[in-house]
Amino acid sequence: MSNLDHATAFRASVEPTPRAAVTHRPLTGPGVLLTGGLLAQWQARSRDASLPLALRQLKAMGNVDNLRLAIAGAGGEYRGPEFMDSDLYKTLEAIGWEKTLTGDGAIKEFCDEVISLLEKAQLPDGYLNSYTQVTGERHYSKLATSHELYCAGHLIQAGIAHARGTGSTRLLQIATRFADHLVDAFAGKRAGLDGHPIIETALVELYRETGDERYLRLASQFVEQRGHGLAGDSGHGSRYLQDHLPVRQFADITGHAVRALYLEAGVVDVAVETGDVELLASSVARWADMVAAKTSITGGNGSRHFGEAFGDAYELPPDRAYNETCAAIASFQWSWRLLLATGEGRYADLMERVLYNGFAGAVSADGLRFFYVNPLQRRPDHFECDDPGRRREWFSCACCPPNIMRLAASLEQYIATTVGEVLHVHQFTGAHIDADLPAGRFGVDMTTEYPWRGEVEFRVRQAPAASCGLAIRIPGWSNGAWVTVNGQPTVNGQPVGAAPDASGYLTVSRRWRPGDVLTVAMDVAPRLTFPDPRIDALRGTAAIERGPLVYCFEQVDQLAGVHVDDLALDVSGQARLAGPGGAALAERSGALPGIDVAIVVEAAAAHLPRPADHGLPYTTRPDTTRPAGSPEPGGERVRARAIPYFQWDNRDGRAMRVWMPLHTTGGNR
Amino acid sequence: MSNLDHATAFRASVEPTPRAAVTHRPLTGPGVLLTGGLLAQWQARSRDASLPLALRQLKAMGNVDNLRLAIAGAGGEYRGPEFMDSDLYKTLEAIGWEKTLTGDGAIKEFCDEVISLLEKAQLPDGYLNSYTQVTGERHYSKLATSHELYCAGHLIQAGIAHARGTGSTRLLQIATRFADHLVDAFAGKRAGLDGHPIIETALVELYRETGDERYLRLASQFVEQRGHGLAGDSGHGSRYLQDHLPVRQFADITGHAVRALYLEAGVVDVAVETGDVELLASSVARWADMVAAKTSITGGNGSRHFGEAFGDAYELPPDRAYNETCAAIASFQWSWRLLLATGEGRYADLMERVLYNGFAGAVSADGLRFFYVNPLQRRPDHFECDDPGRRREWFSCACCPPNIMRLAASLEQYIATTVGEVLHVHQFTGAHIDADLPAGRFGVDMTTEYPWRGEVEFRVRQAPAASCGLAIRIPGWSNGAWVTVNGQPTVNGQPVGAAPDASGYLTVSRRWRPGDVLTVAMDVAPRLTFPDPRIDALRGTAAIERGPLVYCFEQVDQLAGVHVDDLALDVSGQARLAGPGGAALAERSGALPGIDVAIVVEAAAAHLPRPADHGLPYTTRPDTTRPAGSPEPGGERVRARAIPYFQWDNRDGRAMRVWMPLHTTGGNR
Repeated sequence: MSNLDHATAFRASVEPTPRAAVTHRPLTGPGVLLTGGLLAQWQARSRDASLPLALRQLKAMGNVDNLRLAIAGAGGEYRGPEFMDSDLYKTLEAIGWEKTLTGDGAIKEFCDEVISLLEKAQLPDGYLNSYTQVTGERHYSKLATSHELYCAGHLIQAGIAHARGTGSTRLLQIATRFADHLVDAFAGKRAGLDGHPIIETALVELYRETGDERYLRLASQFVEQRGHGLAGDSGHGSRYLQDHLPVRQFADITGHAVRALYLEAGVVDVAVETGDVELLASSVARWADMVAAKTSITGGNGSRHFGEAFGDAYELPPDRAYNETCAAIASFQWSWRLLLATGEGRYADLMERVLYNGFAGAVSADGLRFFYVNPLQRRPDHFECDDPGRRREWFSCACCPPNIMRLAASLEQYIATTVGEVLHVHQFTGAHIDADLPAGRFGVDMTTEYPWRGEVEFRVRQAPAASCGLAIRIPGWSNGAWVTVNGQPTVNGQPVGAAPDASGYLTVSRRWRPGDVLTVAMDVAPRLTFPDPRIDALRGTAAIERGPLVYCFEQVDQLAGVHVDDLALDVSGQARLAGPGGAALAERSGALPGIDVAIVVEAAAAHLPRPADHGLPYTTRPDTTRPAGSPEPGGERVRARAIPYFQWDNRDGRAMRVWMPLHTTGGNR
Repeated sequence: MSNLDHATAFRASVEPTPRAAVTHRPLTGPGVLLTGGLLAQWQARSRDASLPLALRQLKAMGNVDNLRLAIAGAGGEYRGPEFMDSDLYKTLEAIGWEKTLTGDGAIKEFCDEVISLLEKAQLPDGYLNSYTQVTGERHYSKLATSHELYCAGHLIQAGIAHARGTGSTRLLQIATRFADHLVDAFAGKRAGLDGHPIIETALVELYRETGDERYLRLASQFVEQRGHGLAGDSGHGSRYLQDHLPVRQFADITGHAVRALYLEAGVVDVAVETGDVELLASSVARWADMVAAKTSITGGNGSRHFGEAFGDAYELPPDRAYNETCAAIASFQWSWRLLLATGEGRYADLMERVLYNGFAGAVSADGLRFFYVNPLQRRPDHFECDDPGRRREWFSCACCPPNIMRLAASLEQYIATTVGEVLHVHQFTGAHIDADLPAGRFGVDMTTEYPWRGEVEFRVRQAPAASCGLAIRIPGWSNGAWVTVNGQPTVNGQPVGAAPDASGYLTVSRRWRPGDVLTVAMDVAPRLTFPDPRIDALRGTAAIERGPLVYCFEQVDQLAGVHVDDLALDVSGQARLAGPGGAALAERSGALPGIDVAIVVEAAAAHLPRPADHGLPYTTRPDTTRPAGSPEPGGERVRARAIPYFQWDNRDGRAMRVWMPLHTTGGNR
């Protein structure tokens, strides 16, 4: 079975086979085109600003030159970390999904150049890795750290993107040759596991693309072989590599966050293609563990700088959160697979949280600078080693920027799916949607100012003659939603419904006609969010959210003399937050570059005395420390301004906070 | 000038020259002998349990064999990290200060063996480093990471300890030859700086021991050359190596904690020997910065696992505190030098805090296991990579255990000093003190059950005919102190005084007679301590202290079904703490190995529901999260037990907390 001839249709990076045990299916037919909103802006920015930057950097940093050295054979001066090839592959994958780019001169030139180099560098047996070929390292001899199969996985994903996005199979052929070599080298053996997963999900997709079951079997083998010490030791122990237990035997997500999350994508892929309910359940359990106790409010994962790793349950520091950008992307990919498998809206909820906060915040407003680490707090005069913690144009370990680009280039894939005769819409943005349902093509135009406003309009452009359904995700953060069809809250005398079903979707099934309009209004009034008391690092604080957006307080937005770190939120009143969607003040700060909508809150700005006991910041006199709940709160009353988290660090590099101490106004201790 | 002939007198590891600009002087004459209390116990335990363990481990891990390989020349299989020699040197230093050990067969055999190997391994030009000599690495070619001068510094300190402690100069001669080589290689040049300081303070002490000013000049050069990039790059940047600015030009302590703190010891040494007030002031400013915003309540330093480094100001997480044991020791050494220089009791206060908490907690009750990292909280099921975070017998990077031993072996050095005709006592424990004041010998016996009780008795054994003073540090945590002389609160009609002077010392000067008794009673009632509100990670919590001891709640001590992580302290009443020294309950838990005194408190044990909003641990309903100050505190009332922090992890490996959430009983939010 080959799908290579479908290249002109809408194709996605995840396309379960007809036999796969999934609830949702990606669209067939023309699919989705982004027409407006943040997602479309981000996609365009990535294409127009980020991608050209990547092409320059990949040449400047040696990624392309490493291939030339590999062609020349061992002995040259390899540059960068072992996995430099993967940055090329992720960029090629981005280009693959940017179908409109195939005609661009510079892009096409880069693609042709790199793919030609890859063809030449690939060894006769199909092996391809510039690091080992230049350094002379024995193939697969240091899998704990060499990233050889990790690079192979990204090559396969890039090849699939080119085939599905552009119709060109030249890169896929290189990838398939390498995959065949992997089958020869690893299938049915205990020949080792790559320390950094991604090969698993890549091989399943290659199976889906080619129909060759050897790739599925090898992916399954790699998944099942974890937990037996076959990944070796990278110096951080077995949990770091998710090699401490077989995946079926543990329910707590652990170790290096990106590795863990990429592995889970492969676990779900293998589970749905093999119909393995137990395997799927193990991944669902780890997702629930991650969400319940190891995920930042921004959707970020990985609490620890050391080992770029998940922490203990409820270890969620805002300042030291690592929240690697690649982890946000990997989480997004895992949740998408679970959404397809189960149809449960909670996975799309997390994807939205990640998308608008942890992922979006990783890119500067101009698309030219990137975060690798995405904390929820930056103190004044912050340093991590010599790094003040601002976005950077590129990194010596540059996994994140091209990863951002490949997701940005494929965002339209995550908008909608089908379940039988029902079109499901998961994310809200301007989009043309055309789904080929069994009953016929269902064309819907989505228009919205989301996330700035909560109203979303779905206008039917084309519909099957028979009844079909339009199912809208109602986000968990919304207090239900107000729905109308053609302006009426009822259809055939029945209320359309304001509450979603158990899966989180509100479905309207009827014989749709062109021109029919379904509207959904969600509650995007600013809201206060409180942390679970088990999260020690957030005790006595609250955050502000509005719709899917987490807000933050940046120093540059505050009144003169008011320090972000001295602010405490006043949450005593009812009209405690003012912002668009709320009742009171709409503040559009168009004058601030990159800042669309701000929220203004009442706060207390303290001028905190230093405890004088011993010089230490600990005292027996609670009145000078003002813990939450203390009788004398002190501090002058000021107005403080918050902006969407994803827009921080676009002006200066001063302090930022998401979680704000609560200002209390009395009561016993 | 040579002091080598003083070997039979009391000698200390820090002996400023007569010309040095210091306020306090180490004792001359018989000095101090520990006779009882925790300090004497710890010293004996280190000698009887830890030191024999070290000798075994240094042979098993390859430290001794590396010297044999070095003698054989380059090419052998060097084992362990670059600085394996330094573990040998620190152990030899411990042996040097353990004067009573010179007769011990196994110890003497080990010393003779290792010193003989060092003599043979030392190159004709004086250079000595097993790592470079075995691996063939060019000398001083990778100073950012090679630790060559770091090892040399520890060799010098060990040589001085042997000379001063035992009278044997054999090891000092090796050290002096190496020091002479360092003078040849570095003096007056810009030939590089070691990435890990300690050579600075070692060279100053060698100057003090030998009178050779070349060593002082080289130490001064190494101090002044920091901040010009001469330390190279160890991969963590210039702050990590304290090489970002000249030491005179920054006031914030930063980078790798142990490196920073060892450097400061050298800065103070150079400053006092050269009379450089500006240089001393820069170190004082960094000490104040450290204490005000970068020190745990246990005295621990280094907030970050990544880079084992100081964090930003007020970045003081209890769970992720690194607080390396070596940093506690280095802090202790720095504060001692500042105490000698300035005479200010705040330095002795911090030394006490470090000694009884951060330092003492690093050793198991049996002296056979050690912490490298000393957090203030351990969550249930904690893992750092594959490490559950319990004490270990040894480490692949074993800097901490022998460092503990060398401090334990020299504890009596830090008890007392003199200022003119006044004997100052800084730490309280059973001790015979004999100080040769200008007026004559002043012999005092100190007896106390400190820190379990607050009373300390000083009985004069011998006194000069003329008036002299006895000055007692009154700790900053004590609400003054109650003082009597021969049972009377007055002397010659004047009150002895209950408040210390501005330096923190209470001085009684008179013509002392043998048999005179001075008593000091400090307030060791349990007390609640609150964090500065800037410490986000501690918001809404309190800790319990008693005298110099920080207490902690360990899971094993709680009632069945009560989880440490669900406890919240009830601080609403007046009789809120019960424990020895307090008014109510004395609980001596002799049945628990290693646990001397426990404190019982009222607490609320909640059974916390998980917020159900989105599965995430964040909710818009504060009633389910119960932040401090919320109206419905919930939870059942239980009694909770706390033990001294230094005694934790001696039974099982479950949860522990120092900082406890506050239980609030009403009031507005």
